[in-house]
Amino acid sequence: YNKHYFAMDIDPKRIYVGPGTKELIFNLLEILHGTVILPTPAWLGYLPQIRLLKKNFHMLPTQANQKITPSDLRKLALRLHDRQKILILNNPNNPTGLLYNRLELEEIADVCKEQSIAVISDEIYAQTTYDFSKFVSMGKIYPEGTFVTNGLSKSHAAGGYRLGYVIFPLHATDLKAQFKKILATEYTAVSTPIQYAAVKGFEISNEINEYFEITRNIHKIMGEYVYKELSKMEGVKVTKPEATFYLLADFNHYASDLQAMKINTSQKLSEALIVHPYHTAIVGGDSLVLERTDYSARIAYVDYDGVKVYENYQKKKPITDDDMIEFVRTNAPRIVAGIEMISKFFEKLKKDVVNLSSKRDSLSIQN
Amino acid sequence: YNKHYFAMDIDPKRIYVGPGTKELIFNLLEILHGTVILPTPAWLGYLPQIRLLKKNFHMLPTQANQKITPSDLRKLALRLHDRQKILILNNPNNPTGLLYNRLELEEIADVCKEQSIAVISDEIYAQTTYDFSKFVSMGKIYPEGTFVTNGLSKSHAAGGYRLGYVIFPLHATDLKAQFKKILATEYTAVSTPIQYAAVKGFEISNEINEYFEITRNIHKIMGEYVYKELSKMEGVKVTKPEATFYLLADFNHYASDLQAMKINTSQKLSEALIVHPYHTAIVGGDSLVLERTDYSARIAYVDYDGVKVYENYQKKKPITDDDMIEFVRTNAPRIVAGIEMISKFFEKLKKDVVNLSSKRDSLSIQN
Repeated sequence: YNKHYFAMDIDPKRIYVGPGTKELIFNLLEILHGTVILPTPAWLGYLPQIRLLKKNFHMLPTQANQKITPSDLRKLALRLHDRQKILILNNPNNPTGLLYNRLELEEIADVCKEQSIAVISDEIYAQTTYDFSKFVSMGKIYPEGTFVTNGLSKSHAAGGYRLGYVIFPLHATDLKAQFKKILATEYTAVSTPIQYAAVKGFEISNEINEYFEITRNIHKIMGEYVYKELSKMEGVKVTKPEATFYLLADFNHYASDLQAMKINTSQKLSEALIVHPYHTAIVGGDSLVLERTDYSARIAYVDYDGVKVYENYQKKKPITDDDMIEFVRTNAPRIVAGIEMISKFFEKLKKDVVNLSSKRDSLSIQN
Repeated sequence: YNKHYFAMDIDPKRIYVGPGTKELIFNLLEILHGTVILPTPAWLGYLPQIRLLKKNFHMLPTQANQKITPSDLRKLALRLHDRQKILILNNPNNPTGLLYNRLELEEIADVCKEQSIAVISDEIYAQTTYDFSKFVSMGKIYPEGTFVTNGLSKSHAAGGYRLGYVIFPLHATDLKAQFKKILATEYTAVSTPIQYAAVKGFEISNEINEYFEITRNIHKIMGEYVYKELSKMEGVKVTKPEATFYLLADFNHYASDLQAMKINTSQKLSEALIVHPYHTAIVGGDSLVLERTDYSARIAYVDYDGVKVYENYQKKKPITDDDMIEFVRTNAPRIVAGIEMISKFFEKLKKDVVNLSSKRDSLSIQN
């Protein structure tokens, strides 16, 4: 599987399988010494694990392009005094949908070598990369210092099949022995039926290739629609996803309006959007390890009947831009409605704030 | 399920489900403060967990009857200076096959109340109790201080279906909240297909009742055979199993003979028994958290084709003692052979030691 898709010919002895990538990342953080470097925004799962394990950690906020830069990484590493540091690199990235290209990874790897940084490269979204030829594993670029984690849940849309794997760095013999002990101590194994399913899932076949191809294209079509629609909104900055089924939308343009309406945190923004009449669920900034007052949000675009959409795609592949918009409208009405609702929410917010201030003005005149 | 089989009417809010009882016990040890009291001999999984979590612990060796006594428990608790202690009670017990009766549990519970001891009552073998009416859960006797753990793997012979549950004590609201966080942080959930299987498994039906009944009887027949055969051996002390599919055999009668043949540890005894011509696998003392030189061993009696034996039992239920011996001989030839081999091993050992010493004698005469 790794050889076929990622051009990585890995000795099976370097691979450990566990009940979910999440648990394997937890186990890796358990055995690895040193301060954890966590780029933000981040998937909400890493920080609770770091905290539960009482590890030292530092956030590494990403720049406007929403990727970490080698120079920021070096600067932070120089401030840390541990002999070893651990970088959690989520590539492709949840929540931004962005992909690190080969050059970017090489530059990051250079800093990691220079500053003794081990990398946990969480590549759970690898197979969702829209142009799959662009995906490069950090395990290929920095094999001596990278722990690659991956699993079934995203690539095979099998979140309920708890099976993940980790590829250990070359020459990490002691760590492997320690890791094996931890796995044996904390849990026995992945459930047997799931193991059988995984054997099938990791086989190379035309069927599964077609499946990956089609799901990638569907994610891409949905993603581009959502990206374009949100970008039309005044002041909203949106990441352009190259993988996953998420993007990050920055609504901080409306910060003062939101505050005027007592929506003081990203949490409050999420709550305001989910109630009537909007019914739209977003994942707000504080769940993405951003400041509580950062009005950025992850927008997911998978709210449709997967089997039906898959069949419809097979029947008639959308080719032109118009086909694709039509495809989204027909197959994912809830996504279309959700984006409209976000747009309406902010339009109404502007109006409410204007009304509020004119009311205040008239009150002050009366006084 | 708990109401029907264990006469315990538990609020579902007190129950947490996880990927295997092993992992739930690990998570419990993670959240519970205080020194762990570990009765020995013990299942091999507890100690590595305690060590990995860097918890204080004390062994509590059981007496000749191989159960802990309330007075020993009190004595140990008085020596420990933590405000809270944790007792790991494995009932029915692996490796001895013994069952704590209601009176014994009540006496232990009294000490626990008096000495602030929380109990992790690992009842994974509950359904294997031969006379099921004798099984009483510690959760019934000491509901305010007992964490009951159980799962599918032994009762339903579904070790590969990683699903366990824990019943929290009454009024443990804070601990439940903390536990929930740990579960969410370390892993996401039990695999979906396993959850569906478990729903079926925990339903009450005549079919599953019959299944429990028959498997209990088969374990009982096999256990009694093994118990009787091993008891015939000179000097060997054997626990009489009332549950599980194990018993504990004490071969320390042969200690000096074993040492004479350079079999200095229980590990070496296991190794000597597995090689040609004996081919018999036992779990030796040091895997049971006993002294390395304690020649006690767990003997498991499940080495047969389960489906076939189950069918044969259904076809013709063995009634008399002779029927039962015949049943074992027909259905479990590997168990019969294994016991014979253990017997032969020790016979040969005696002879070898005699030869060795007469050789030594003749040598010393020549000198």
